[in-house]
Amino acid sequence: MQEKGSISIHTENIFPIIKKFLYSDHEIFLRELVSNAVDATQKLKSLGQLGEFKGELGELKVKVSVDKEARTITISDRGLGMTAEEIKKYINQIAFSGATEFVEKYKEKDAAAKDQIIGQFGLGFYSAFMVAKEVEIFSKSYRDDTEGAHWVCDGSTEFSLETTDKADRGTDVVLHVAEDSDEFLEASRLKGILNKYCKFLPVEIEFEGEVINQTAPIWTKQPAELTDEDYTKFYQELYPFSEPPLFWIHLNVDYPFNLTGILYFPKVKDELQFQRNKIQLYSRQVFITDEVKDVVPEFLMLLHGVIDSPDIPLNVSRSFLQADANVRKINTYITKKVADKLAELYRKDRAGFEEKWSDIGLFVKYGMLSDEKFYDKAKDFALVQNTAGKYFTLSEYQEFIQANQKDKNEQTVVLYTSDPEAQHAYVQSATERGYDVLKLDAVLDPHFIGQLEQKLEKTTFKRVDADTVSKLIEKDEAAESVLSDDDKTKLQDVFKQAISNEHMHVQVEALSPQDAPVIITLPEFMRRMKDMQRVGGGGGMQMFGSLPDSYTVSVNANHPVAQRVLQAEGEAGSTLARQAFDLALLAQGMLKGEALTAFVKRSADLLAAE
Amino acid sequence: MQEKGSISIHTENIFPIIKKFLYSDHEIFLRELVSNAVDATQKLKSLGQLGEFKGELGELKVKVSVDKEARTITISDRGLGMTAEEIKKYINQIAFSGATEFVEKYKEKDAAAKDQIIGQFGLGFYSAFMVAKEVEIFSKSYRDDTEGAHWVCDGSTEFSLETTDKADRGTDVVLHVAEDSDEFLEASRLKGILNKYCKFLPVEIEFEGEVINQTAPIWTKQPAELTDEDYTKFYQELYPFSEPPLFWIHLNVDYPFNLTGILYFPKVKDELQFQRNKIQLYSRQVFITDEVKDVVPEFLMLLHGVIDSPDIPLNVSRSFLQADANVRKINTYITKKVADKLAELYRKDRAGFEEKWSDIGLFVKYGMLSDEKFYDKAKDFALVQNTAGKYFTLSEYQEFIQANQKDKNEQTVVLYTSDPEAQHAYVQSATERGYDVLKLDAVLDPHFIGQLEQKLEKTTFKRVDADTVSKLIEKDEAAESVLSDDDKTKLQDVFKQAISNEHMHVQVEALSPQDAPVIITLPEFMRRMKDMQRVGGGGGMQMFGSLPDSYTVSVNANHPVAQRVLQAEGEAGSTLARQAFDLALLAQGMLKGEALTAFVKRSADLLAAE
Repeated sequence: MQEKGSISIHTENIFPIIKKFLYSDHEIFLRELVSNAVDATQKLKSLGQLGEFKGELGELKVKVSVDKEARTITISDRGLGMTAEEIKKYINQIAFSGATEFVEKYKEKDAAAKDQIIGQFGLGFYSAFMVAKEVEIFSKSYRDDTEGAHWVCDGSTEFSLETTDKADRGTDVVLHVAEDSDEFLEASRLKGILNKYCKFLPVEIEFEGEVINQTAPIWTKQPAELTDEDYTKFYQELYPFSEPPLFWIHLNVDYPFNLTGILYFPKVKDELQFQRNKIQLYSRQVFITDEVKDVVPEFLMLLHGVIDSPDIPLNVSRSFLQADANVRKINTYITKKVADKLAELYRKDRAGFEEKWSDIGLFVKYGMLSDEKFYDKAKDFALVQNTAGKYFTLSEYQEFIQANQKDKNEQTVVLYTSDPEAQHAYVQSATERGYDVLKLDAVLDPHFIGQLEQKLEKTTFKRVDADTVSKLIEKDEAAESVLSDDDKTKLQDVFKQAISNEHMHVQVEALSPQDAPVIITLPEFMRRMKDMQRVGGGGGMQMFGSLPDSYTVSVNANHPVAQRVLQAEGEAGSTLARQAFDLALLAQGMLKGEALTAFVKRSADLLAAE
Repeated sequence: MQEKGSISIHTENIFPIIKKFLYSDHEIFLRELVSNAVDATQKLKSLGQLGEFKGELGELKVKVSVDKEARTITISDRGLGMTAEEIKKYINQIAFSGATEFVEKYKEKDAAAKDQIIGQFGLGFYSAFMVAKEVEIFSKSYRDDTEGAHWVCDGSTEFSLETTDKADRGTDVVLHVAEDSDEFLEASRLKGILNKYCKFLPVEIEFEGEVINQTAPIWTKQPAELTDEDYTKFYQELYPFSEPPLFWIHLNVDYPFNLTGILYFPKVKDELQFQRNKIQLYSRQVFITDEVKDVVPEFLMLLHGVIDSPDIPLNVSRSFLQADANVRKINTYITKKVADKLAELYRKDRAGFEEKWSDIGLFVKYGMLSDEKFYDKAKDFALVQNTAGKYFTLSEYQEFIQANQKDKNEQTVVLYTSDPEAQHAYVQSATERGYDVLKLDAVLDPHFIGQLEQKLEKTTFKRVDADTVSKLIEKDEAAESVLSDDDKTKLQDVFKQAISNEHMHVQVEALSPQDAPVIITLPEFMRRMKDMQRVGGGGGMQMFGSLPDSYTVSVNANHPVAQRVLQAEGEAGSTLARQAFDLALLAQGMLKGEALTAFVKRSADLLAAE
């Protein structure tokens, strides 16, 4: 016995699921019905241009209205219209034609993808039943000698269809709103939905006597037609109450994919303020989503604006998007456009570029870190700023410091501070010594430093408090000490005893008499390891437990305090050493809690006693 | 003309969508097929118990295997099995029976809800086509005198069905994996999926010669059967590498809903470490999700563990869940269970409860803030700790401080520190004065303080640095100053000039000679306003711009430094005043950057010169 047959699906059972479950968001019904009305209108216009429709186009607005008492929402257009036969063809047979090809094309799927498929396969109309218990269609075709048709369906699979006297060409869809969807009888709710999805549709949409959309948003125009004011005005419309954007990029490409849009660089200084998902994605002027992940390179998610493309496989799953050739091309295109725009700004107006740097630096560094191609373009216009406020490109800065900041191994040492306020004493020492110090205090700067050390030849970065100023950049100079070796040993012992902390490694050094009597430093390598450990990186170093603190305490042999400590008698030397050490802790921001209270008290007593 | 008719759906067009798109995650296919196999096995067992099946049950393992070369995955059971007629009934007609009622019951929908519906309506089997280009079923019913059946479908709506010689009872489902689903031919991938969804299924599942599941996880047992070790062992299985849990609650309820589970209190001190979505939701031992939002009260999302209930409307949309009567009851039940458990721990072992407080305090405070009923239960066991490390309940603490910390208006003033280290000098002054200071340094404590001020009668909270110690709790005592009014005015002028900062309001006060010469405070009210503003609250206060800093600088008329300032000549008084002010800034953590560097330098020079 062998048998062949067909798997069957019972329409009356799957229909409720299509009606209620296929869209993840009920409000979508309005987008679908208004889009259908706009399509019918656009098609009629095309027929008019082709000469296939010779009648009067007249006013072509799509009108949306709500009657709270009658519990109806009506969407009316003056587009193509349908005859009873056409209704039977387009409405009564839920049209899945093409689904198979679509599935083949986009093998991946996710929840949102379904919305998209459905829209493409004419199921959109049925989304009306997500909010309506009964739907009526009144329609009259643009063709002469056709009768009006009236279709009614109560949400079951049964419908009725009859002729009707409809005077005017076009289609009215009347939704009799269900009890559980009262919210959609509120004009404010409908207005909100129209504003979200339909704000830029190409045919006028009227609601409550007002046209709610702009039929020709600026991204559909040519840059040559537009002024700066047009761009900033549009930005204000998209993001009310925002500061004006720094600049923008008008995207416009036909081949090998179709994409238009405007990307704005927002003015924000604080990374925390950045809001992702500020780019809106449209497909032929219908709003689709503001989740553009994977369409736009990660580091450009911080931009704002609009992208409109029918060629992006909307809402298809992430892993698919990443592999999609079009999406990869779009990514590359946008990255290149952004890099070109930045290069142009830098070239044409260096001063203006420097002014904007505090806002765009983060984008640029993020891009350099995450995209090798972007790094190659950006390395010529990326800026660094020193503590005096002066900006340099990377090559300018290497040039600027190379005479003075090469160590004995011909390595250029870039000195930086990650917090000019907290490291003030160290910055001051370094600049007094004639060194230049960069301000690298942004969130991304530790990673940026790592990248620059890899990219720039013979260059290392050191934080200003990584060593005493005379050793930050090692030269072949012997420091001269006024102390004998015996005295040095004695001095070291007094300090060791006064400090009595095994993580503080005391050494006596011949520093300048102008330097502090005691200086506490943390070697660059040690600090980076600890930083890595803190953020959880460092390749499983946590397994070995926390790194101990390990500071270097440099006692300045040439400072008068050293002499006084050596000459003091009894406890006085130790007290003096402790006070000098406390001052060093203060300068390093390490004197806290009980120790700080004791220091303040001791100092106040000294003030009183003097 | 009126016409009636039926809306139709073309099976061959919707089938690809059902196959590829109805589940949001492809890996679900394995859960569905293994669950089907387990159901078939369980049903046979029941029939055996009822005496309707009299044969030998034999070994009842479900076996999953993969053949990478043949590109097949096979799921075999020794359960009920199906005859050709049964296959026709259950497999060939995609069974949507009941869909309408389901839709009526759960009017809301979301993407995940669909997965659930599908599972319930027997579509689960078709999820095989998400990963397979062809599926075969070999089956033999448990009934005597039936023939084996072999069904094949290549993913179109056409199938073939024939008899076959299957020796053994049960069903083998063979998936011929499609080219785009190679990942599922990897044993490690399949093992991962089985581990995720099938780890606690009630029938043994064998993969690669090993049973991968525990058929009787401990939550299905009675608490009386279980030891502490069973509970901690299970915790380690769920969350390897975690510290042992603090304690746990075994949930077990039959009426008015069915729910079992175990909730663990994890050991974590830092709020940042808390991981939500650590509770796993099961339905009859099949893993469903670890997003239990809305099933578990918000503040208990920080707990870990397992909840198993067939009565939770799984994966239905959020707004629906919130309104569901069962879910509300479950919420209330869990909250009550947790509060009772905590009360019991407190009652039975106060010392142990205090030890755990640093871990559970955050849960309890979060619960008190977010749930009025929980507050009422928790107010009797919630603890506060003072800077000496001693714990009190709220009423114990009120009792403890009331003799000493009532102000002249009969208000009890609770003194607290939000950072014992940074506010060390102020804590020291307050305790030296005989006051008690609470440590309220947790993230939630500012909100907790606000709640306690509303709940506790005649009680206010003040941070220790809100005023000088003599004014923190206002009494009817006149302070005596050694200075004449003229001297006070002179002293004030010297300090004003030395400080010359309009946000520092200098006043001369008669403090104790043991107090600091200068003390900087920020009134409680002002600090709270600034805190609110910083976190963006405060009812639109931002509109009026930032609040200016406004500190009170109290110069201690009774400190010897005051005398020295008054007696000093020329610039010396001003220098002394500045140094005393700098010490006060230091104690308040406000001396930074250039000012700190200058202070350190000046102090070092003083040290050298003395």
